Amino acid sequence: MSAHDDLRYRNLTALFRPCSIAIVGASDDVVRISGRPLRYLKEGGYNGTILPVNPNRETVQGLKAYPSIAALPEVPEVAILAVPAKLIPSSVRECADRGVKAVIVFSSGFAEMDAAGGEVQAQIRDIARAAGMRLLGPNCIGLFNAATGFYGTFASALDLGFPVDGGVAIASQSGAYGTHIAYLAQERGMGISYFVSTGNEADVEIGEVLLWLARDPGVRVIMAYAEGLRDTATFIEALRTAHERRVPVVMMKVGRSVRGANAVSSHTAALAGQDAVYDAVFRQYGVHRALTTDEQLDVAYACARGLYPNGRKLGIVTVSGGVGIQVCDAAERCGLDVATMPESAQEKLKALLPYAAVANPVDVTAQALVDMNVLTSALQLMLDQCDYDVLMGVFLTVPASKSFALPLRDAIAKAAAAHPGKLIVMCMVTQDKSVVRLYEAMGLLAFEDAYRAAAAIAALADLQASFERGVSRRPEVRAAVPLPQGGMSEHEAKRLLAQAGVPMLAEHLVGSSTEAVSAAESVGYPVAMKIASADIPHKTEVGGVALNLGDAASVRAAFDTLLQRAATAVPNARIDGVLVAPMAPGGVDTIVGVSRDATFGPTVMFGLGGIFVEVLKDVTFRVAPFGIEEARRMVGEIAGRAMFDGVRGAAACDVEALANVLARVSAFAAEHADDLESLDINPLRVTSRGVVALDALIVAAK
Amino acid sequence: MSAHDDLRYRNLTALFRPCSIAIVGASDDVVRISGRPLRYLKEGGYNGTILPVNPNRETVQGLKAYPSIAALPEVPEVAILAVPAKLIPSSVRECADRGVKAVIVFSSGFAEMDAAGGEVQAQIRDIARAAGMRLLGPNCIGLFNAATGFYGTFASALDLGFPVDGGVAIASQSGAYGTHIAYLAQERGMGISYFVSTGNEADVEIGEVLLWLARDPGVRVIMAYAEGLRDTATFIEALRTAHERRVPVVMMKVGRSVRGANAVSSHTAALAGQDAVYDAVFRQYGVHRALTTDEQLDVAYACARGLYPNGRKLGIVTVSGGVGIQVCDAAERCGLDVATMPESAQEKLKALLPYAAVANPVDVTAQALVDMNVLTSALQLMLDQCDYDVLMGVFLTVPASKSFALPLRDAIAKAAAAHPGKLIVMCMVTQDKSVVRLYEAMGLLAFEDAYRAAAAIAALADLQASFERGVSRRPEVRAAVPLPQGGMSEHEAKRLLAQAGVPMLAEHLVGSSTEAVSAAESVGYPVAMKIASADIPHKTEVGGVALNLGDAASVRAAFDTLLQRAATAVPNARIDGVLVAPMAPGGVDTIVGVSRDATFGPTVMFGLGGIFVEVLKDVTFRVAPFGIEEARRMVGEIAGRAMFDGVRGAAACDVEALANVLARVSAFAAEHADDLESLDINPLRVTSRGVVALDALIVAAK
Repeated sequence: MSAHDDLRYRNLTALFRPCSIAIVGASDDVVRISGRPLRYLKEGGYNGTILPVNPNRETVQGLKAYPSIAALPEVPEVAILAVPAKLIPSSVRECADRGVKAVIVFSSGFAEMDAAGGEVQAQIRDIARAAGMRLLGPNCIGLFNAATGFYGTFASALDLGFPVDGGVAIASQSGAYGTHIAYLAQERGMGISYFVSTGNEADVEIGEVLLWLARDPGVRVIMAYAEGLRDTATFIEALRTAHERRVPVVMMKVGRSVRGANAVSSHTAALAGQDAVYDAVFRQYGVHRALTTDEQLDVAYACARGLYPNGRKLGIVTVSGGVGIQVCDAAERCGLDVATMPESAQEKLKALLPYAAVANPVDVTAQALVDMNVLTSALQLMLDQCDYDVLMGVFLTVPASKSFALPLRDAIAKAAAAHPGKLIVMCMVTQDKSVVRLYEAMGLLAFEDAYRAAAAIAALADLQASFERGVSRRPEVRAAVPLPQGGMSEHEAKRLLAQAGVPMLAEHLVGSSTEAVSAAESVGYPVAMKIASADIPHKTEVGGVALNLGDAASVRAAFDTLLQRAATAVPNARIDGVLVAPMAPGGVDTIVGVSRDATFGPTVMFGLGGIFVEVLKDVTFRVAPFGIEEARRMVGEIAGRAMFDGVRGAAACDVEALANVLARVSAFAAEHADDLESLDINPLRVTSRGVVALDALIVAAK
Repeated sequence: MSAHDDLRYRNLTALFRPCSIAIVGASDDVVRISGRPLRYLKEGGYNGTILPVNPNRETVQGLKAYPSIAALPEVPEVAILAVPAKLIPSSVRECADRGVKAVIVFSSGFAEMDAAGGEVQAQIRDIARAAGMRLLGPNCIGLFNAATGFYGTFASALDLGFPVDGGVAIASQSGAYGTHIAYLAQERGMGISYFVSTGNEADVEIGEVLLWLARDPGVRVIMAYAEGLRDTATFIEALRTAHERRVPVVMMKVGRSVRGANAVSSHTAALAGQDAVYDAVFRQYGVHRALTTDEQLDVAYACARGLYPNGRKLGIVTVSGGVGIQVCDAAERCGLDVATMPESAQEKLKALLPYAAVANPVDVTAQALVDMNVLTSALQLMLDQCDYDVLMGVFLTVPASKSFALPLRDAIAKAAAAHPGKLIVMCMVTQDKSVVRLYEAMGLLAFEDAYRAAAAIAALADLQASFERGVSRRPEVRAAVPLPQGGMSEHEAKRLLAQAGVPMLAEHLVGSSTEAVSAAESVGYPVAMKIASADIPHKTEVGGVALNLGDAASVRAAFDTLLQRAATAVPNARIDGVLVAPMAPGGVDTIVGVSRDATFGPTVMFGLGGIFVEVLKDVTFRVAPFGIEEARRMVGEIAGRAMFDGVRGAAACDVEALANVLARVSAFAAEHADDLESLDINPLRVTSRGVVALDALIVAAK
């Protein structure tokens, strides 16, 4: 890290934890945007220095005010600029001159408005960057740090009460959405330690914010919202850091739909990467991508508890058989394993509760509520004698009844006492939120809807599995010999890929029918022959391929025919000759491609070939480079993966060799990040022993 | 309808709307199961006669009590039997003898417990049926009718307050789940007119309940829960009736997962039909199948408003660009059309709100909240000048602020005044439910989560489309000639299907190589030949097929070869001869099958053939018989349906001919409901003009 970068990072830390803060344009009106931050700082217990700047007043909200930034008695670490857009450039300049470490710009009217606004935004960014001063915004609602009481924001959600520091951090490009989930999280009893809205991201981007949050020891879960990214390297470093520290990132990335993506580009200056590539990145770095606000809240809420199940075995206890079936359906739909209780435990439970269904779901029936000791014993049995990773209690509206709310809680607490590390999830409905808080206080997770609970449990299990395996090691990217300029023949493409470790058939480029025959004899009959020319990329279409040639005469004839057809179809094509290769072994055809994503760079696509890719678009992506573990997961994500198991009596395919080639292609793509436009191996045939590329096309970047 | 059936139906009506009611075992303890119904009847304002029966007391809860059913001064229309299971048979007998029209049995300990309990249940059913008396339960929590104040239930949800009659009916096999959704519906401000829990269904089944509810003019939406069905004919009649009356049925059918289905069979005596067949029935009759409780509540809540959009065009207005993008994603994921505003409307909006994004989603920005008249004008523009079927306002926590809650409502009300039939959906979060009720009072739907709102809107649009097209006419089922006993050859199967209207290739059964040659000459070369034997169903596996025979010599040779191979592979096979047919035209291979579902009878499966069905299980089902409209929908449901559009330069397929054959096969299946075990047409080749069955297998029921 350069000295300047180092300064910028230290100043980012000051932005999160300032010892002193100036509010430029501070107002007495505690409802106005320019008045709220001061009120929040005072009421929220900020114990640093607060310096209002207002040339028209002696005091603001009871604090001495100063006429200008220059007039301040000390240099504030952070300045909030609550002034109109037209005053922002001069204010930023004054702060930079004074040595302020970071400024927060609320005002809108910059890049989100028009090109002129974009130019002003670039100006203030340049002023800040030259000074190493950080700039949050413009067009943002600021940030807060609940632990220090630093409320550098006008988010009205704080009117509901100040958050308790609970290890949940929120980072959002959209101020409105960030405030919205902060409100919902608070309603749900979650403690928000940090809230950051990045707005137009003239300087501070969401990736850097995520990185800073991921490094903070107090952060246990991060909720993030983004519309697009610029600095992908820092974003990925943030995801990697969070993952290594086992801090889950529960992220909403919008602009999935075509129309949504269009709205993104009209809404912010962010570049919306192809959505499937975001999916790829999130998979690679174990990010939980939330598609709905409910899901984002549910998963973050579950993560905040800090208990991650080591597996997916779920024990279910209910007071209704019918509900048990429904929850069982829901759990299986979420990929959880509603495993049968051991026989011995079932017998004991039956002795305890003769009417109960005891296999799992366990229906203790309403009888269990008559004597809570029996319920405790039943739960103990499930916790002690079954190896469930998670226990889910579905008690519907039972806790809504005053006569049951606390006794039920105590019955569960007694049973759970001996299993402090076990994740227990309650599904319950009550209008009295304080009852829910009492259940949570003993370490349970509480959900209203059993399906949402099951989905959150599955997300926890996925995150734990991802934490356990670690982020797949990215292979070393070597310096690469540049790709040849201009068009490239199949033969050349295959030679490059063979060097990169992609298996090819023994293939000979020949210039005469005599050479063709001796090549055929060296690889063994029957052979395939193809015209070799960079100017004829789609050989089949011009009749440039001959298959299953069994003897010298056929080879000789084919040589002439192929050249003739090529000359007829593409008269000016430069012909390198004819390729002679053995006939390919049988297997399953796949397709491997590389393209350049505008946001993330070279990206590898994998899918089944032929009809599968054409009709079903059954493909998956990863950003290059990646290792073989990641490649194995790609293979496992394809809907048609059963093809590899051997359909209609075919032998099972060598998916390990396939994964190996995918990783090697990803390394090749990364090595040629700058000069590779696209690459296609179609088909890459997967046989029962190994794989072989039957065709390859490489286009170099212009 | 027989006189007895007619009596039973009239007595079912008495169960829903009794003029007098006895409570056998009535208790003074208003918390006990035997005490609650009386309390609810008194407090709920029931104005019929209430007759407590209790031999040990002079009065119960202030009403004169009688020692027995026989001692009652009048015959009650309904009797609630709140006595232990062992007293139920004698009580049922007494009621039947006295001429009671219907009894409600709360007690458990019958078929759900053990075989002995099942026998007692059969006894009480028989007593009731012989008398034409209806019996609800046992093992149920009863029913209520909010309009008449008849609370024949001990559901503790009533402790929260009595429902307002709002046209929502709940019918549930599970008392616990029924109570749960009733509670949630009430919390959501929905008015429940009827609640019925059917329990073990000794007599009254859920299908009959649904039929009664569907016929009631006051019912506007039905929420249903089932684990399995017995009387499918009545169930289907109920769905058809509801559909004709445009009463949506929002149904949860549990037991989807294998384990869930197992839990069903251990939980009730119901037969769980194959889940995909339930899906088929729900599709055929326009039922909204809810997979989660949230979904069931959301859709029923939306239906209760009674406004069904005629299309899927959605206008979105927000106060945050970021949230607009997210809602746009959500809406498109739900299949809604976030159509761009007309240019002229965009210009007017831009004039009104210079900072706004105006294409759709419309981001009016926080500016619009400063002057509510501007917001009203913006909304008017969207309502007047764009042809959106639904308008969605995403206002996040704005209504949670006291200064905005009512002004925002009024601004929307003003804009909406000129569009009384337009569905307007608010997405808003506030802790104050009374604010939500105020918005609803002006006819809006209110949701917290925009995704859930979008999903509910899509459900409304689907229901409306289904109501508009009506339930697909079921073709007449003719009397059929019984299928031949024992095995059936391919030739015989094809003959039967050809009679049923399934196109076949001109195919000749020949007994000698000379006959084979003349057959080949009559259909034209090249031909295909196949061994014909009911004992060799899988001909390819024994080498019993020869293709592309181009001349008389090849046909002659093939005849001998096929017979030889058959004799070697299946020495004792009865050989009918050899089939000679023209080579099939090219096209897309599909598979059509019929099987017998234990619950719904003959069921037609359709899918793409080959890899698609084997690897992807890409198939869909319908219960036979069905018409061509339904068949068209089947074709449209297949994931690989793009195959029919013509892949890789192939011509588009004749899907109309395909749909026609599916409908014809369904009629054949229905005609042979009693003697058809299974049927397979594999492949049914779909060409650019027509379809042709290339192989067929029929197995008659034993």
